[in-house]
Amino acid sequence: MDIIKALNWRYATKKFDPERKINESDLRTIREVLRLTPSSYGLQPLKFIFIEDPQLRKVLLPHSFNQSQVTDASHLLLICSYRDIRNEDIDAHIRNTVNIRNLDPDRMTGYGDFMKRTIGELSESSKLTWNVKQAYIVLGQLMLACAQMGIDTTPMEGFDADKFDEILGLNEKNLHATLLCPMGYRSTDDPAQYNPKVRKSEEDLFETL
Amino acid sequence: MDIIKALNWRYATKKFDPERKINESDLRTIREVLRLTPSSYGLQPLKFIFIEDPQLRKVLLPHSFNQSQVTDASHLLLICSYRDIRNEDIDAHIRNTVNIRNLDPDRMTGYGDFMKRTIGELSESSKLTWNVKQAYIVLGQLMLACAQMGIDTTPMEGFDADKFDEILGLNEKNLHATLLCPMGYRSTDDPAQYNPKVRKSEEDLFETL
Repeated sequence: MDIIKALNWRYATKKFDPERKINESDLRTIREVLRLTPSSYGLQPLKFIFIEDPQLRKVLLPHSFNQSQVTDASHLLLICSYRDIRNEDIDAHIRNTVNIRNLDPDRMTGYGDFMKRTIGELSESSKLTWNVKQAYIVLGQLMLACAQMGIDTTPMEGFDADKFDEILGLNEKNLHATLLCPMGYRSTDDPAQYNPKVRKSEEDLFETL
Repeated sequence: MDIIKALNWRYATKKFDPERKINESDLRTIREVLRLTPSSYGLQPLKFIFIEDPQLRKVLLPHSFNQSQVTDASHLLLICSYRDIRNEDIDAHIRNTVNIRNLDPDRMTGYGDFMKRTIGELSESSKLTWNVKQAYIVLGQLMLACAQMGIDTTPMEGFDADKFDEILGLNEKNLHATLLCPMGYRSTDDPAQYNPKVRKSEEDLFETL
């Protein structure tokens, strides 16, 4: 679908059709969009958890303000941010770069040390905040890509992230639940789909210097 | 361009062709992508500043680590976040909703009060952080949309945001410089375009529960 048409077509779906499932080919595209999304320094400080178990989705429902999308959408994606960026994560990234680009490892030592120095100066909470921001880049690309494929999404910040961390054992994995994104197909009886889109005017949003 | 092809084609452009300019039709599409991007509560706590004045771009260059993209790219977009969300901003959003959807204003009073209560509980710094996150959603959509149009972008967090605020008088406008995004066309002699893309493997990034 054309970009602008897709952005006008999409909306934060309130009610999904629980019978319609995203097919395997579209899921492959979605996974590749998630994987290819750029991030600061290319570190991809994220983990993408697809929650398929219907029982687990029921358990998470009350911690998501009982929003029916959590159980009814074809797929439920939880975007998690790493809480920390450790030297070993930077080493792994450098190793990956060396392998993919077939470089001399010695040529990358200086760059790795630079990253460790720069990132090492950040506080724990600054690192988490930085990683969380990268999750929002992914969300932006995901929503646009899905809309172009005719797939509905509901971006959600409104859930009990600490409770999600606890239930899914994310703390122990150095992760933090950041964004929840049910994906699938709108129900024909979701009235929200007929609401004209509310956006600020060009005059309010843009300035040229 | 196909989504996956576009994501593979794009890269953080290091050197732009200073002679090639984005045409007016593509700029209109870019502006509409920025305008239509979703945000929390639909508040769009952002301002998009296109910095066209070549002299001003030269002034900003040393505060952007002298990255040549700031002066050489066809267009330079600065995504700013509002520092605060005031009751009058919420009122303006409600008024906009009432107008666009042709609603009875009384029906929206409760929702406006709910937003004011919820957002009023946030600290000043939490409000700014929240607004900043919305800028990253925009960046994600913008990079994907531009790539599909064959337009190069360089997402930049690495600039002296406080200095930008000072030079552009953003504080007085309740704004904060958040992301810088030069846009245009890669130079044929930018070697970075030939580097194979480095991304984590599916095994590292995905989990299914």
